[in-house]
Amino acid sequence: MPTIRDISLAPLGLKRIEWVRDFMPVLDALEKRFIAEKPFAGKRVSVCVHLEAKTARLALLMRAGGAEVAVTGSNPLSTKDDICAALASLGIEVHAFFGATPEEYKEHQRRTLEFCPHIIIDDGGDFVTLLDKYPQYATNLIGGCEETTTGISRLKARVRAGTLRFPMMAVNDANCKHLFDNRHGTGQSVWDAIMYSTNNMVTGKTVVVAGYGFCSSGIAMRAKGLGANVIVTEVNPYRALEAAMDGFRVMRMDDAAPIGDIFVCATGCKDVITKRHFERMKNNAMVANAGHFDVEFNKDDLRSLSTEVFDRKPFIDGYRLKDERIINVLADGRLVNIVAGNGHPAEIMDMSFAIQALSAKYIMEHGASLENKLYNVPDEIDREVALIKLEAMGLGLDRLTPEQEAYLNGEF
Amino acid sequence: MPTIRDISLAPLGLKRIEWVRDFMPVLDALEKRFIAEKPFAGKRVSVCVHLEAKTARLALLMRAGGAEVAVTGSNPLSTKDDICAALASLGIEVHAFFGATPEEYKEHQRRTLEFCPHIIIDDGGDFVTLLDKYPQYATNLIGGCEETTTGISRLKARVRAGTLRFPMMAVNDANCKHLFDNRHGTGQSVWDAIMYSTNNMVTGKTVVVAGYGFCSSGIAMRAKGLGANVIVTEVNPYRALEAAMDGFRVMRMDDAAPIGDIFVCATGCKDVITKRHFERMKNNAMVANAGHFDVEFNKDDLRSLSTEVFDRKPFIDGYRLKDERIINVLADGRLVNIVAGNGHPAEIMDMSFAIQALSAKYIMEHGASLENKLYNVPDEIDREVALIKLEAMGLGLDRLTPEQEAYLNGEF
Amino acid sequence: MPTIRDISLAPLGLKRIEWVRDFMPVLDALEKRFIAEKPFAGKRVSVCVHLEAKTARLALLMRAGGAEVAVTGSNPLSTKDDICAALASLGIEVHAFFGATPEEYKEHQRRTLEFCPHIIIDDGGDFVTLLDKYPQYATNLIGGCEETTTGISRLKARVRAGTLRFPMMAVNDANCKHLFDNRHGTGQSVWDAIMYSTNNMVTGKTVVVAGYGFCSSGIAMRAKGLGANVIVTEVNPYRALEAAMDGFRVMRMDDAAPIGDIFVCATGCKDVITKRHFERMKNNAMVANAGHFDVEFNKDDLRSLSTEVFDRKPFIDGYRLKDERIINVLADGRLVNIVAGNGHPAEIMDMSFAIQALSAKYIMEHGASLENKLYNVPDEIDREVALIKLEAMGLGLDRLTPEQEAYLNGEF
Amino acid sequence: MPTIRDISLAPLGLKRIEWVRDFMPVLDALEKRFIAEKPFAGKRVSVCVHLEAKTARLALLMRAGGAEVAVTGSNPLSTKDDICAALASLGIEVHAFFGATPEEYKEHQRRTLEFCPHIIIDDGGDFVTLLDKYPQYATNLIGGCEETTTGISRLKARVRAGTLRFPMMAVNDANCKHLFDNRHGTGQSVWDAIMYSTNNMVTGKTVVVAGYGFCSSGIAMRAKGLGANVIVTEVNPYRALEAAMDGFRVMRMDDAAPIGDIFVCATGCKDVITKRHFERMKNNAMVANAGHFDVEFNKDDLRSLSTEVFDRKPFIDGYRLKDERIINVLADGRLVNIVAGNGHPAEIMDMSFAIQALSAKYIMEHGASLENKLYNVPDEIDREVALIKLEAMGLGLDRLTPEQEAYLNGEF
Repeated sequence: MPTIRDISLAPLGLKRIEWVRDFMPVLDALEKRFIAEKPFAGKRVSVCVHLEAKTARLALLMRAGGAEVAVTGSNPLSTKDDICAALASLGIEVHAFFGATPEEYKEHQRRTLEFCPHIIIDDGGDFVTLLDKYPQYATNLIGGCEETTTGISRLKARVRAGTLRFPMMAVNDANCKHLFDNRHGTGQSVWDAIMYSTNNMVTGKTVVVAGYGFCSSGIAMRAKGLGANVIVTEVNPYRALEAAMDGFRVMRMDDAAPIGDIFVCATGCKDVITKRHFERMKNNAMVANAGHFDVEFNKDDLRSLSTEVFDRKPFIDGYRLKDERIINVLADGRLVNIVAGNGHPAEIMDMSFAIQALSAKYIMEHGASLENKLYNVPDEIDREVALIKLEAMGLGLDRLTPEQEAYLNGEF
Repeated sequence: MPTIRDISLAPLGLKRIEWVRDFMPVLDALEKRFIAEKPFAGKRVSVCVHLEAKTARLALLMRAGGAEVAVTGSNPLSTKDDICAALASLGIEVHAFFGATPEEYKEHQRRTLEFCPHIIIDDGGDFVTLLDKYPQYATNLIGGCEETTTGISRLKARVRAGTLRFPMMAVNDANCKHLFDNRHGTGQSVWDAIMYSTNNMVTGKTVVVAGYGFCSSGIAMRAKGLGANVIVTEVNPYRALEAAMDGFRVMRMDDAAPIGDIFVCATGCKDVITKRHFERMKNNAMVANAGHFDVEFNKDDLRSLSTEVFDRKPFIDGYRLKDERIINVLADGRLVNIVAGNGHPAEIMDMSFAIQALSAKYIMEHGASLENKLYNVPDEIDREVALIKLEAMGLGLDRLTPEQEAYLNGEF
Repeated sequence: MPTIRDISLAPLGLKRIEWVRDFMPVLDALEKRFIAEKPFAGKRVSVCVHLEAKTARLALLMRAGGAEVAVTGSNPLSTKDDICAALASLGIEVHAFFGATPEEYKEHQRRTLEFCPHIIIDDGGDFVTLLDKYPQYATNLIGGCEETTTGISRLKARVRAGTLRFPMMAVNDANCKHLFDNRHGTGQSVWDAIMYSTNNMVTGKTVVVAGYGFCSSGIAMRAKGLGANVIVTEVNPYRALEAAMDGFRVMRMDDAAPIGDIFVCATGCKDVITKRHFERMKNNAMVANAGHFDVEFNKDDLRSLSTEVFDRKPFIDGYRLKDERIINVLADGRLVNIVAGNGHPAEIMDMSFAIQALSAKYIMEHGASLENKLYNVPDEIDREVALIKLEAMGLGLDRLTPEQEAYLNGEF
Repeated sequence: MPTIRDISLAPLGLKRIEWVRDFMPVLDALEKRFIAEKPFAGKRVSVCVHLEAKTARLALLMRAGGAEVAVTGSNPLSTKDDICAALASLGIEVHAFFGATPEEYKEHQRRTLEFCPHIIIDDGGDFVTLLDKYPQYATNLIGGCEETTTGISRLKARVRAGTLRFPMMAVNDANCKHLFDNRHGTGQSVWDAIMYSTNNMVTGKTVVVAGYGFCSSGIAMRAKGLGANVIVTEVNPYRALEAAMDGFRVMRMDDAAPIGDIFVCATGCKDVITKRHFERMKNNAMVANAGHFDVEFNKDDLRSLSTEVFDRKPFIDGYRLKDERIINVLADGRLVNIVAGNGHPAEIMDMSFAIQALSAKYIMEHGASLENKLYNVPDEIDREVALIKLEAMGLGLDRLTPEQEAYLNGEF
């Protein structure tokens, strides 16, 4: 029995899935192969990823490969009820709905694991954590795949502590994932969400981006492309220099706070913006988060400074400070691109999910010989996805001649 | 009696108006002055502009200046019912609702003119045209203001033909309007709308922009900023060279048709994309219009090539061609940034509407001495708006010393 | 008898002229026509333009059209002796050498006018001024062409004062001149010169550009493209807003002075940077001028603050202030792109000089019927140059159908 | 006895060294420390790097640290005779002059090693290779540092083959080296050199960049910033996708050859452009190399197609093909930014050479305990250089609180 909101939304969801299919050619190519080879025949796969149209394509791809599939969302605010309905109508076991309470959300995750999967596809480490509590659901488990930088940090902590109990694939670290999803997917979708929800100008604004890693440098690059004057804050000196050489102003958050119009955090850290920064911000400053957890700017600090929190428009809360200044918080401090927007473009998730699908296949085939560690995605998988994508985009690649290969190997 | 959809939406509309107010400082400054001076006391103003939150601010500003105000929308698909309700709840005479039929739409316009305004604020020339049919509504009329390039072309044709019967101000041609609204307002809002409605990647795509005027060059610039490879088509050789020197590929539409992923027209002309172009487009090409009328790409031609037109997702129709290729039409070929998006950012309309309000005041004060012609906005108005905006943005301006002025006047 | 430095440099100069010929296809096309038509047969043309390879092509083109040609340079520091030698070896009457003293320079100009030209090609108004003193050289004169914004300002002052004594063509104001030469020619060549002479990084630097007109906005755009963080100063509020919307920081020079690393002026005005600005600059700030006259930053002010002026490297003087800070002045405050660099790229001068040649032909053919005023270049000339250039660049232009023309004329 | 061209050039060289000193603040900071600590007291250092002003600063820094220093250049065409004279006048043992024959060049290198250094600073592996032939010069040798990607490839081949006989530091791989020197140093200096030597427009041109690694992506980025339409060719599928996502066109060299105006190679490989590509190029195409060796485009192939090779202007040879097309080769296929330009900006070499100096110090202090391998630069050195640079640039860096550190380590 699926746990969804409204099965009547299925036709709408099916249309949306059909739409994204047209922009995910790598998954299409894999689907043809999976239908022929049925690599997951007889296996169960549990998926926990932001549950919208692109994720539905991943679930359907796994099923085309012979798997039984159960899915839940990785954030109750990113779950799309029409997609849940569509998946349920196609016989996928779905446990998710938009706006689930924390209790409901946990129960959705539990039920998706109760399925006793052979493979898990995880986002931010939620499944892995839950399996500590319900070891009985891991009886079939061969291993899994992790989607995010944050999840991988947590898995590494487990490996160090010796508490990882099955092999996991570091999908985030594959080239075809982090080089595109983190930088370009986040870069575009953050501004899509901010522009759409605020209807504010980006050009002519001073945008402060906290961080200059893969996600945050993508956010900074796109802000510049949209005409903003961009300030970057960093704790890492190399990245700070890179940001400066890429033409951004680099300063401490203390100095950026009073001059920024729009603040976006994507550091993976907490408390990047705190009380003393909010106190100095301009009236009507915007604050948004694009990091995995809603801790990058400290909402408690902001609330403690405020006389009122009021609804301004969808996905925007106004915090009125004692001196009447308003600080506008987007998406309640959660992932702004997913909560207030549509998430990463389909063309990007095409690569990320292709890596997921092939990594799941890999762990299924090799899991028995793997240790309880975090594994990199093999280069053959990564490369294959890249080559299919290039072909789908109609881009030509040169090939090394044997003489060139010899030259590069120092045989000259 | 207002003609609106649902008065219960007023609270939502009021919030939205409050939101945009925070990003329209020039209108705020004018409001303070208008409240003190009541320049429109005893006068009636009829407004026909895309009816959403920013336009509501213009209507309220005019009323703050003492005017009685009637408003309608300039396109039934851009009218926001919550804004209509909010304005009605504040006593503005509103005649508009979303999705009006052509007959309803014409009736809304008629009723807004039946008000017998002293001043009209027009968008695309609809009011001026309607007053030919209902000369009885022009009994009080002193003159009016026109917002768009298209409306001004039509007014110029009237001036040439001797059929303009009252003075009009060419608001579009003011520096504070076309330099910012057309280029930056359109540039951002078109991509906001396309990204939000398609959830497609812009980076890595080949975008074809038809035209390289103020609007279209803004669209091209932002597409480049978002990572696209941009092709420009033009009929004007200077603009074609400018586009090439700005780093764009320039070619005929015949050559661009088979390589574009996303097509955006903003030429002010018709039939820029026709049958022979659609026939050569790639599967799943997107076609959008950002020109005033929905004639820039020829939908009839596309329909004649299609076996099916089907709903794909909000604001996107799929046209299935005989060979199974799909051409995706955004916003049914209407202004994509207004129909599928939120229109220009508030900060931009702040300037455009400040020019409108001050031009309306000007024509009211000087109308008696003006001929039935199209007048440029006086530089003092234009300059004043620019100076208020600069101050609101916190930007410093240097001043010429008397010695520098003398030098520039050739006294050296 | 030519007045040149060293005829033995002719072979080198000829090579350089041959080089630029390959990148000036419009002049080539005109040359073919001029050779056939000999429009200047029996006429004398005196040319005063920065005397380097591209200018040599203009002189040779005029001669190919049947003219006798005399040339001098418009700045003794921009004259290339090898080009002078090459022209002399081809029988052109040249009066110019690099590093002429002010007296020698004036004499070179005088001798070039003593030639009693029918047509003058002027740069900055020097010939026109000199003809006040030597009216006897104007006996054949039909009229002339002016190349620069500055020269045109001076001609306008003369028209106002009634002291222009022959018709002049405002070559600078043609689309094919100012849209490309001023913006793109200056934009690139200024940074070419600054990078080459300083060997300094542009990326990561704070660049202050004084002005946001055609030349200065080109300089700002290229600085941004090279990775700088760019500040713009302006006296014109529209341009200040445009700069802000184009993503630049806009502030008063007083505020920019202490944070800039590199200052470039291109305002057409004097005293844009004065004593109080130099006093606040950072150690090792660079100051350069790209305006026509060396008055944009006040060198006297700087000298008065300095304890020493010393040669640092070619085209760079160090001004040591009392507190040991050094201000580096490029090209002695003269046009940095021409004195310390190679001037505008050949492809740009191809258009500017094509306008010159066709304007000279126009004034010769129509001079008798023209008043002693400043005339715009006719659109047919401008358009013809644009069309030849587009074809040479291999760029396609769409053509309006009769139906489209009718639509644009309001016949719908 | 130094081997130099002309000692009378010393004053000019000293000025140039003084100039770059002002833009190399990290070396300045290290010099203060080295003078106090004399870390190289009693030690000999042999340096083989492109011998110009910035390199002179490195040599002088080592000497300030107590070393006896001998220097030679790493390419006879990049050696500046005034700098050699200046160093000789300061008592550095210099063996180099511009335009040395291959035999002279080898002899210069030999004499620099004959010095029996304790430390070598190498560029491209020349010293390491030469020490195979003259093992007697390695009697004092503790180890060395390698500057380039190419040199490191060769050292890795030696490590694999077991033929490296002393420890070497991979200076190129330090963050403060390759992130800035390769990408930004090469990016700017290549275009500086091409613009200066050709005086051609970059804007509006089609530029083909072979490769999308650190150097080549910097070249592509700057070409775009200068207004070019840029095509990238690659053999690596991830980089090809990155280039496409960064907005470049990606295609095979076979397809790029007929449409490019300017070709720049920086792949580290040979035969990237060969006969079949030259055959299809446009008339007056430019071909330049920015890779370490002059093998990236095949000059022999080009010569075999040509009827004539002629001097066009400094650093540019014209190859006339049988059909009269001309292919222009820049800098004879050698590193265009160093041969036809001034090399990397001083601000960049400030970091690269700081890493060199501190790595030399490191190997001197730890060499006894190191194996005959290639070592990464320790992060403390890398980080220290970054922190000094940030401070010199006036850029603020945030610091992690203990709570943030704990959070990042998974303690939450």
